[in-house]
Amino acid sequence: MALIEDLNWRHACKAYDPAKKVSPEDLEKILEAARLAPTSSGLQPFKVIVLQDAALREQIAPAALNPDCVRECSHILVFAAWDRYTADRIDKVYDLTTDERELPRGRFVSYTDKLKEMYLPEEPEANFAHIARQTYIALGLALAQAAELRIDSTPAEGFDNAIVDQVLGLGEMGLKSVSLMYIGYADKERDWLGTMKKVRIPREDFIVEM
Amino acid sequence: MALIEDLNWRHACKAYDPAKKVSPEDLEKILEAARLAPTSSGLQPFKVIVLQDAALREQIAPAALNPDCVRECSHILVFAAWDRYTADRIDKVYDLTTDERELPRGRFVSYTDKLKEMYLPEEPEANFAHIARQTYIALGLALAQAAELRIDSTPAEGFDNAIVDQVLGLGEMGLKSVSLMYIGYADKERDWLGTMKKVRIPREDFIVEM
Repeated sequence: MALIEDLNWRHACKAYDPAKKVSPEDLEKILEAARLAPTSSGLQPFKVIVLQDAALREQIAPAALNPDCVRECSHILVFAAWDRYTADRIDKVYDLTTDERELPRGRFVSYTDKLKEMYLPEEPEANFAHIARQTYIALGLALAQAAELRIDSTPAEGFDNAIVDQVLGLGEMGLKSVSLMYIGYADKERDWLGTMKKVRIPREDFIVEM
Repeated sequence: MALIEDLNWRHACKAYDPAKKVSPEDLEKILEAARLAPTSSGLQPFKVIVLQDAALREQIAPAALNPDCVRECSHILVFAAWDRYTADRIDKVYDLTTDERELPRGRFVSYTDKLKEMYLPEEPEANFAHIARQTYIALGLALAQAAELRIDSTPAEGFDNAIVDQVLGLGEMGLKSVSLMYIGYADKERDWLGTMKKVRIPREDFIVEM
């Protein structure tokens, strides 16, 4: 299936059928699309939390703009970014890279030195601003993968990050929540957006040629 | 072609063959994937600049980490975000939405009022931080679309935003550059990354199940 057809098919689902679950095989494909997402310097500075536990979801529901989706969707993916860059985190990624490519460790040391020079003197907030952006690439690709499988999904911001971080214990993992992605199958009766025309800014207002 | 195969195929191309150009049809598909990207509240708060002009590219090249890519790729896409949210920009998007759906203008006024309440009192920098994140969803989908077409691409940050904004006159358009995306066809001799194994953090370190 072509990506553009998939993107035209998808919409931000507003209500899920709680009886319908995403299969483990399909879930893995969605997670794999997120894992394969490119990121700045290849650091993949985030994790994806797969949240199924009903009790945890119930604790998060009031913190979200769409509590029924939190309760009723099949799975919630939480895109949780590193709270900051550290020398250890950078080295770990590049040690993996050299090992996997059967190169000597330290092969990219001049590059990782540059990354450390750039990021480590920054305040954690400045690091996090850069890191959080990267998660959106993976969010977009996970949404596209769900659409390819004709699985409904909803990208969600606007929730109370502090509550989500606390309930899921993200702080202890050195992570901070950025966005949520609900997946499942729409309850077509209640999913009011499902029947509405997709609207996008026309090409001539969106693209500038130089 | 499946998205996961496309993502496994792609890599950040490090050198382009200046003689090979992306066809207008393929370029339109890549732009369409970016245009169809979901964004927070559907605001699509950015534009994509398609940069072909050799003189402008030459002015930008020294500001980029990979000046040869700037000169030699087929096209550069500049993801350029709104410098801030405004009432007028929000209304324009929702007027388009209601018109396209044949609903009365103002149908979403309680929602747009909430958006204005949330965004307009913020400093421009806080607005921009949120807006810039949205561009990465489109960047990811444009990269995926290029890969589906087996067109090489490179996502690029780390350039001098002030120079790019000034050369392209983005300030006068109320825009600020966020990322660049080079597209074209690799010069396989010089594209050193093209033959290296793709490395990603293993699934067990990237996914957390709860």
